[in-house]
Amino acid sequence: VGLLGGSIGQALIRRRLAGQVVGVGRRAAALRAARRLGAISAGTTDLARGVRRADLVVLCVPVDQIAPLACAAAHHGPPQMVITDVGSTKAAVCAAIESAGSVPRFVGSHPLAGSEKTGVEHARSTLLKGRLVVVTPTPATDAAACREVELFWTRLGARVHRLSPAEHDQALAVTSHLPHLAAAAIAAATPEEYLTLTASGWRDTTRVAAGDPTLWRQIVLSNRAHALAALALLDERLAELRAALVRGDAARLEELLNLAKCKRDAVGS
Amino acid sequence: VGLLGGSIGQALIRRRLAGQVVGVGRRAAALRAARRLGAISAGTTDLARGVRRADLVVLCVPVDQIAPLACAAAHHGPPQMVITDVGSTKAAVCAAIESAGSVPRFVGSHPLAGSEKTGVEHARSTLLKGRLVVVTPTPATDAAACREVELFWTRLGARVHRLSPAEHDQALAVTSHLPHLAAAAIAAATPEEYLTLTASGWRDTTRVAAGDPTLWRQIVLSNRAHALAALALLDERLAELRAALVRGDAARLEELLNLAKCKRDAVGS
Repeated sequence: VGLLGGSIGQALIRRRLAGQVVGVGRRAAALRAARRLGAISAGTTDLARGVRRADLVVLCVPVDQIAPLACAAAHHGPPQMVITDVGSTKAAVCAAIESAGSVPRFVGSHPLAGSEKTGVEHARSTLLKGRLVVVTPTPATDAAACREVELFWTRLGARVHRLSPAEHDQALAVTSHLPHLAAAAIAAATPEEYLTLTASGWRDTTRVAAGDPTLWRQIVLSNRAHALAALALLDERLAELRAALVRGDAARLEELLNLAKCKRDAVGS
Repeated sequence: VGLLGGSIGQALIRRRLAGQVVGVGRRAAALRAARRLGAISAGTTDLARGVRRADLVVLCVPVDQIAPLACAAAHHGPPQMVITDVGSTKAAVCAAIESAGSVPRFVGSHPLAGSEKTGVEHARSTLLKGRLVVVTPTPATDAAACREVELFWTRLGARVHRLSPAEHDQALAVTSHLPHLAAAAIAAATPEEYLTLTASGWRDTTRVAAGDPTLWRQIVLSNRAHALAALALLDERLAELRAALVRGDAARLEELLNLAKCKRDAVGS
């Protein structure tokens, strides 16, 4: 029950969308805090107890833990229970769960609503409002479970977009994992003695590098081939900029900056 | 009288620090807008008129125009008049002005308070509050003029830090020009069809790429050698991340992300 799980719980409770929101976690103190913050209506450190009568389980855990926890939850929950997740990569997770064969009603999800902040204390019931959630059914996914998961995200105020797990991972390698790796590289490239000479440009560009290194190591490693392909795309663009700089080619440099501005402006603030 | 000039004018007027704030610009309509917004107390499209009785001139123009406008202002202003600027690079500008020999009371300044937004309509009197202004005197700089310029920025609420023009350009290549080039490269590397799959990570990391391509082309070209050296630093860090990804080396990848996080955390939000 961290930033995302807590925000989902708060939205469910505020919008009265669930009879009960049971938080499952490792630390009882954290679950008490989540309850105080209105993120869950009950908490337990016992997964089996937590899912025993669940209609829907949302796994808000690092990508490496999604498949094993999905299997454990399915084992302890009722047969009609639907399971989804909020993991940042989908192909490896969905494949692991399908090959296990014991989680027939799993549907992969990825709400594009992260933050470099973590922890239930940053949760807010509006986190998902207007955000995009990518839902990643496969040919083996139960169609009714998929509709149920899509309805769930829609009711929380999010928009839903379907992609295959592979399509998702290829796109997110560019739109999420690449910015993260680049932000980390820019931050790391900055000598300590220059840190006081940074302004909003540096701060914006490197913001995501403050994210949890363990979480992000898992994310990029679980999407390694696409992350490397995205880095190659970045290298090409950096090489173009470098070549224009070396030649002192003002027209070309401005053209490249303008192409970038067009794409940035298309997304908005 | 754009974002920076307008913000400086608003602060001068609100804090009653100047008898008159004269905006000099090319378009009378823009000067009328600046006056309506409380950014100037009078406006003129005639530089000679604008500086005739000035104590201090602040050149808020693209870097390529600073040296020629400093010479023109010095020619038309009173002999004791001090001139400073807000340019993002300093060595080329300061050298050009010194070699001209006709602007004895010029002191280079760079307020680290930019934005991807431009125009006086985004000006605000608090833009400089708490920000760092790098002042770049050279051995030839008039000491009294330098103190006057430092006092000016301090009175606007900014902190002042002295660096030589070369030191400034070397540092800012890493803390400002590199993030800009990298942000542009990330935005340009993102295929059109993935733009709808971006979230706050992509938006933060690429935000500065929305900046004016002409301004930024001038900035990086006027600091070409240092910008290329900064790009080489980035390449080294990207290569480290890539190598760890290729090897699937989780420990090394996490170590690199952690080093980046430490630097990012040191700067704050």
